[in-house]
Amino acid sequence: MTRKILNVAMIGTGFIAKAHSNAFHQTGYFFKIPYDIRLKVICGRDRTRLDAMASQWGWEETETDWRKVVGRKDIDAVDIAVPNALHAPIAIAAAEAGKMVLCEKPLAVSLKEAESMAKAVRNVPNMVWFNYRRVPAVAFAKQLIEEGRIGQIFHYRALYLNQSGNDPAKASGWRYQRGDAGSGATGDLMSHSVDEALYLNGPITDLTALTHTFFPGREVDDAVMFLAQFGNGSIGTFEATRFGIGCRNRNSFEINGSKGMLSFNLEDMNSLEFNDMTEAPNLRASRKLMVTGPNQPYADNFWKPGHIIGYEHTFIATLGDFLEGLASGKPFHPDFEDAVAVQRVLDAVERSAASRNWVKLSYPA
Amino acid sequence: MTRKILNVAMIGTGFIAKAHSNAFHQTGYFFKIPYDIRLKVICGRDRTRLDAMASQWGWEETETDWRKVVGRKDIDAVDIAVPNALHAPIAIAAAEAGKMVLCEKPLAVSLKEAESMAKAVRNVPNMVWFNYRRVPAVAFAKQLIEEGRIGQIFHYRALYLNQSGNDPAKASGWRYQRGDAGSGATGDLMSHSVDEALYLNGPITDLTALTHTFFPGREVDDAVMFLAQFGNGSIGTFEATRFGIGCRNRNSFEINGSKGMLSFNLEDMNSLEFNDMTEAPNLRASRKLMVTGPNQPYADNFWKPGHIIGYEHTFIATLGDFLEGLASGKPFHPDFEDAVAVQRVLDAVERSAASRNWVKLSYPA
Amino acid sequence: MTRKILNVAMIGTGFIAKAHSNAFHQTGYFFKIPYDIRLKVICGRDRTRLDAMASQWGWEETETDWRKVVGRKDIDAVDIAVPNALHAPIAIAAAEAGKMVLCEKPLAVSLKEAESMAKAVRNVPNMVWFNYRRVPAVAFAKQLIEEGRIGQIFHYRALYLNQSGNDPAKASGWRYQRGDAGSGATGDLMSHSVDEALYLNGPITDLTALTHTFFPGREVDDAVMFLAQFGNGSIGTFEATRFGIGCRNRNSFEINGSKGMLSFNLEDMNSLEFNDMTEAPNLRASRKLMVTGPNQPYADNFWKPGHIIGYEHTFIATLGDFLEGLASGKPFHPDFEDAVAVQRVLDAVERSAASRNWVKLSYPA
Amino acid sequence: MTRKILNVAMIGTGFIAKAHSNAFHQTGYFFKIPYDIRLKVICGRDRTRLDAMASQWGWEETETDWRKVVGRKDIDAVDIAVPNALHAPIAIAAAEAGKMVLCEKPLAVSLKEAESMAKAVRNVPNMVWFNYRRVPAVAFAKQLIEEGRIGQIFHYRALYLNQSGNDPAKASGWRYQRGDAGSGATGDLMSHSVDEALYLNGPITDLTALTHTFFPGREVDDAVMFLAQFGNGSIGTFEATRFGIGCRNRNSFEINGSKGMLSFNLEDMNSLEFNDMTEAPNLRASRKLMVTGPNQPYADNFWKPGHIIGYEHTFIATLGDFLEGLASGKPFHPDFEDAVAVQRVLDAVERSAASRNWVKLSYPA
Repeated sequence: MTRKILNVAMIGTGFIAKAHSNAFHQTGYFFKIPYDIRLKVICGRDRTRLDAMASQWGWEETETDWRKVVGRKDIDAVDIAVPNALHAPIAIAAAEAGKMVLCEKPLAVSLKEAESMAKAVRNVPNMVWFNYRRVPAVAFAKQLIEEGRIGQIFHYRALYLNQSGNDPAKASGWRYQRGDAGSGATGDLMSHSVDEALYLNGPITDLTALTHTFFPGREVDDAVMFLAQFGNGSIGTFEATRFGIGCRNRNSFEINGSKGMLSFNLEDMNSLEFNDMTEAPNLRASRKLMVTGPNQPYADNFWKPGHIIGYEHTFIATLGDFLEGLASGKPFHPDFEDAVAVQRVLDAVERSAASRNWVKLSYPA
Repeated sequence: MTRKILNVAMIGTGFIAKAHSNAFHQTGYFFKIPYDIRLKVICGRDRTRLDAMASQWGWEETETDWRKVVGRKDIDAVDIAVPNALHAPIAIAAAEAGKMVLCEKPLAVSLKEAESMAKAVRNVPNMVWFNYRRVPAVAFAKQLIEEGRIGQIFHYRALYLNQSGNDPAKASGWRYQRGDAGSGATGDLMSHSVDEALYLNGPITDLTALTHTFFPGREVDDAVMFLAQFGNGSIGTFEATRFGIGCRNRNSFEINGSKGMLSFNLEDMNSLEFNDMTEAPNLRASRKLMVTGPNQPYADNFWKPGHIIGYEHTFIATLGDFLEGLASGKPFHPDFEDAVAVQRVLDAVERSAASRNWVKLSYPA
Repeated sequence: MTRKILNVAMIGTGFIAKAHSNAFHQTGYFFKIPYDIRLKVICGRDRTRLDAMASQWGWEETETDWRKVVGRKDIDAVDIAVPNALHAPIAIAAAEAGKMVLCEKPLAVSLKEAESMAKAVRNVPNMVWFNYRRVPAVAFAKQLIEEGRIGQIFHYRALYLNQSGNDPAKASGWRYQRGDAGSGATGDLMSHSVDEALYLNGPITDLTALTHTFFPGREVDDAVMFLAQFGNGSIGTFEATRFGIGCRNRNSFEINGSKGMLSFNLEDMNSLEFNDMTEAPNLRASRKLMVTGPNQPYADNFWKPGHIIGYEHTFIATLGDFLEGLASGKPFHPDFEDAVAVQRVLDAVERSAASRNWVKLSYPA
Repeated sequence: MTRKILNVAMIGTGFIAKAHSNAFHQTGYFFKIPYDIRLKVICGRDRTRLDAMASQWGWEETETDWRKVVGRKDIDAVDIAVPNALHAPIAIAAAEAGKMVLCEKPLAVSLKEAESMAKAVRNVPNMVWFNYRRVPAVAFAKQLIEEGRIGQIFHYRALYLNQSGNDPAKASGWRYQRGDAGSGATGDLMSHSVDEALYLNGPITDLTALTHTFFPGREVDDAVMFLAQFGNGSIGTFEATRFGIGCRNRNSFEINGSKGMLSFNLEDMNSLEFNDMTEAPNLRASRKLMVTGPNQPYADNFWKPGHIIGYEHTFIATLGDFLEGLASGKPFHPDFEDAVAVQRVLDAVERSAASRNWVKLSYPA
């Protein structure tokens, strides 16, 4: 395989920028990608932090104005890892400059904005870092559902609980400012749960929602929950909160189908619980599959059965699939359109919470 | 302690009647009750089943007409273990005859009916078999909350999942007839979850609900879910279903408070998970308390630490506390008034599901 | 079924006597036994304790001299629940008086004594309360093994860990006196593990052992461990200790066979873990069977699937099977001969620990 | 920090060579090391495999004769990832050439050989890849023990179970040849358990062992187990097997001390169970610590609390600590001397298994 050079520009210097930087370094070792990735330039407004990031993560150059980066001829791909409100201008400018665009989730701070972004990237390769689709256990859940192993789905149940909101000191970060973040738990956490649900169980048609802020003075929601009806006839409950005291990073789902049950929790991400109701009645029980192979998603990419992977590998696998897809022509998901579908649900959630009514989701013809 | 004789009449011959019969036999061995309980008469319409029950569980006499039983001078207490729609006439008649009344849950098939029952029993000792309050782990959760160990409550999360509905053969039983049962998962399962929530977290003030029937032709709901706001400022999600494929009897709750988290699952009923956030940050984690003593509810009644109890002991403890309360004068809960509070929530759930609106709960002045 | 009266005499007033008393009351409700059991007389040396026990558990009469009880014409069965060293004289006297004999474990304080007891009871119905064979999950493990579901057994691994020894206050009880108890963790805890192993995996042929006392001055072992070779070619490790700090009552075993794995822990006694290696490689995992039915041992005796039983039901099931066996002629195990087999292993353990050599177990021709 | 160049030569092209290669690439991103690591040359006998490895993992050059590599002036460090029997000649030659030596475990195929290796490397930086010491949960266990949180240790219990041996197809690999591997489960798996035990609980003084081969014709042991006495007065059981059917990679230990319990399982490597017996009796239970920070080992190196790491990070942390130690002068463990201590135990295990006697471990004065 001859490999082309792929010059990457990173916009952002925070925690997620590290996870992305790591993926740019690592993906080539685990996936057969058609590129030699170069970490060309990293862009941030805080010079000290920018230099530290560049030094630690091996970015060749630094820049403080993202507009200059996006316009550079030598840049092939722009990766966006900044506060939500900046996603749209950067993504649109990058797409207009013909760059491949990779964007952190949630895609945007509003449905309208998301739609304009999706329109802008139509002619360039694009993806959104809903990385949890690439947890092997989540991808395996998808496979089992598609194989019909849990039959007709009746119930979908999603939780995303962390305890980040219970620290008053954190309230000053961008994630707590409406102007920067757009929303609180809704965009930050629920967006993941919704993406997973759409991926695994298809479109949501109706929902009724509640959002809540526990600490007076906060501009964004601390918690969000909704009841949903899916297009496939199943019903669901969703809850995301920054006040899930006692939970570190519980991004979980459970699915009950006519033939079985699946459940997953990101805190134990190398496992998937599966209860196969086609077994003899006295042998039916939830089994905790260790999803490290064999014959399971990404088993051939990473180590060997019984040897777990971690948080960072979900980014590596996302990037790996995206770049392999560019070579093979296999469409990659989630792209910007998929992220618009998530945004459409979040938009309905916010409208329902504001009006205290059920909201029917409308889809473009 | 001199013990009086307590002549009991049981109305009902089904599964729950067995659980109650067992409790009448056993309670004296584990609780200091002021009565010698006599299983005087059992009443049912199916003669074969009635005789079998009487023989297996040691009831002295049998009767096929509950009205005759309720009027007997020698009966002190009437225990009601029949389909829901019959609770009201029997309870009211028994109360009017001056009997002590024990009634299986849910109390009634409507709020109005429940209120009339509560009024009728005002002058006789009365209780409702919401037995799961007496799971030692649930009672211990209550104690920890009252001790302030989880601080201000932010989230309450309840599930009651079983898979009974996924068997078409079962659709013919009384639990699937609106006339007999009043509702499906709502009265059967959700009533337990609501009683536990009111017990642990106080009144619910607002809710929005969804009920659903998966199998066409069923008269009652297979599943019910709602979002709730509590009087104490916390918010909650509730779900009960007979299509929780893969779950045997998952009556569970989780509570996040400012100082910690509690979680419980009836399938593992001798345990309570507790995450104490007042521990040093590096030692914070969910601990799985085995609630078999020492210094925990009912530890002195049953066996010794490390020796678990089962489903039946929740009935024994309920009856034990009720009868001890009669001697000591300590008020017993849940009584009929507590069950009315549950019914008020179920009524709001049904109204919300029908109207697809949020419903505010109104309480009598 | 016409039922005969069975007059029972209980020798002993401690914790185990309560568990047995409960079983005598309860078994008739859950098993089809050919007897009306009468709790005729209870015998103990401490008058206060004796009266309290008789009153709480409904024994008709009391007696302080076991010899008088054993000789009574109206007694049909003698149940022995006293310190180990008294098992032999009582059992032998009861057998000589023609009584049915039920004896708490361990059978005796020495192999020789156990053999003489087994000889004495040859002509009377007899059983030993190794109650954990009747945990439904343990009986189900036996069934799965006999069905060949785990194939050829390679490894057997047993632990019995509690923390009773770490309390200096307890050192004064009879369980810490060699004269009364014979041994410490060996007879008290390891006897259960050995009985389970012989039941599930057959005879042990060779072993090397270590016993240890952590607190100076104690007469008996606090901990015992051994390596074993079984007659079926498998190998095993055994450990029992009163210094298993952090464990309440962890009587557990794990078995690896060519086709699968089983594991059990008494603290979670309604469950059995089973890993079926005949499943497709990507679906192999340990499943946690809830052994409350259907189609599992004792599912028809107690409640219904999803409704757990507790510690006491292991005694009820033991007594139920024993008494049903008397009517049906189906031999009951474990009887005194089975308990001698356990004692033979414990004897080898003690000889090996003393000599620090491997010991080969010899069986009578 | 000015960084020197560190030219590394890798001897080996198998699975472990990949894990090491990954660590050489990654360590600089997560640890503050004083080197720019260059993956200079990789050495293997199979040309096809060698080229594939070099290409996938970015080694600059290839070589088929390790002797040529070891002698190269431009090489600073030699990393040994070949079958066990080759460790000694390569390590000794590398040390004699003045190279830094990194060696995969077990260090050698005999105690004598291990001692000669330790002697050879005395004047060069050296380390052995007992990577599981650097699982954050294992390092945290060490910290808790040193802080006295579990008090005086009574019991140590180690298992290393996988199922690799139950596949006859595997019997032909070098791990099943005595000449290449030295031993089977003993060197492959038990060496890890012994290293962890010596690290956490100190020297073993006496042991009695059993080794076993289930499949006739195999040259090496499939399983090994032993009972141990430690210098600190505690006692232990150890078992390692390739016939732990149902277990993927269960490298686990449990420790009971006077104040608490610790347990760990590599399959769930981001967790450590801790039961703190200094809590109030009704709040004592095992808590499952998620060891991803804060204030836990390696929390500042990798992601953030609630975001797990995987198998590969144990190698990254091992290399990171080793290289940071070279800069800071802080001695690194495990070095070759530590690995000799492991080998001394394995040697005693083999002697005990052969003689069927207890063996007392002798230490050099």
